[in-house]
Amino acid sequence: MLDVVRIIGIDPGLRRTGWGIIESEGNRLRFIACGVLTPAVDQDLALRLVHLHEGLMRLIAEHHPQEAAVEETFVNAGARSTLLLGQARGIAVMTPASMGLPVGEYSANLVKKSVVGTGHAEKKQIELMVRTLMPAANFKSADAADALAIAICHAHHRQHRKLARSA
Amino acid sequence: MLDVVRIIGIDPGLRRTGWGIIESEGNRLRFIACGVLTPAVDQDLALRLVHLHEGLMRLIAEHHPQEAAVEETFVNAGARSTLLLGQARGIAVMTPASMGLPVGEYSANLVKKSVVGTGHAEKKQIELMVRTLMPAANFKSADAADALAIAICHAHHRQHRKLARSA
Repeated sequence: MLDVVRIIGIDPGLRRTGWGIIESEGNRLRFIACGVLTPAVDQDLALRLVHLHEGLMRLIAEHHPQEAAVEETFVNAGARSTLLLGQARGIAVMTPASMGLPVGEYSANLVKKSVVGTGHAEKKQIELMVRTLMPAANFKSADAADALAIAICHAHHRQHRKLARSA
Repeated sequence: MLDVVRIIGIDPGLRRTGWGIIESEGNRLRFIACGVLTPAVDQDLALRLVHLHEGLMRLIAEHHPQEAAVEETFVNAGARSTLLLGQARGIAVMTPASMGLPVGEYSANLVKKSVVGTGHAEKKQIELMVRTLMPAANFKSADAADALAIAICHAHHRQHRKLARSA
């Protein structure tokens, strides 16, 4: 009998943090929910980070994922934006861990490779594959689709680790 | 009659986060406590960030500061270290805000100027001035001294803002 695990994938950003929750049972994936957290841009940085922290806590309390996955952010955007992105990412990584969830981190290339089969996929290809793997996924934004792709990547890799352990 | 305000200053870092708590009453400063949070370097990033978050929550619950001040981190260290620093800084800014404290942010230059009188002071000069302004300050590390300097900077600037308002 295969165990079912519920996973939250998070694509962190200070303006838009995508989130997607799936269930994985062996090779089967099931869509649960997805969306985007959007802290008001006219607020202080501190309050925007609180918005992300409290939003993620609420989602975890509501949907009960058992594991979390966060994309390793791409750092090629100048020191100032990298620092801002880092602050949002700190909240995305810390919040599930503070609620007891193990947190996997995956590079953008590995996420694309897991979902589309190549590390150089376009946004549109990711969205198409997420819809193909989970027809019920009702995302309206690229951020939510990315977050679902991160959760799918985690589902694949935790499965491989498990198979490796039992071999 | 002058009101007394208790301030926590935070100098964020993933290896060492300095903290210092002071009371400010008009031009008088009183040392309350200081120290350094040091997440274990062999832990996962997520757990190190949880260590910082829970450590700051505990300090705020114990010492009841009413306002917080965080240094605007210096970004001249390569994209990877900037991203890591950003994640620690996100926790340092978000945690007091999530507990209802207003959070002031100050550049390293402004902190030095407020404490030593020039924006180009050396670490040793900052430590010396913090000890001169608050002889009771028992810091053992430069990180704690920096955190006290950030709190002192906030004490000066909130005072100026108040005077400007009442003028």
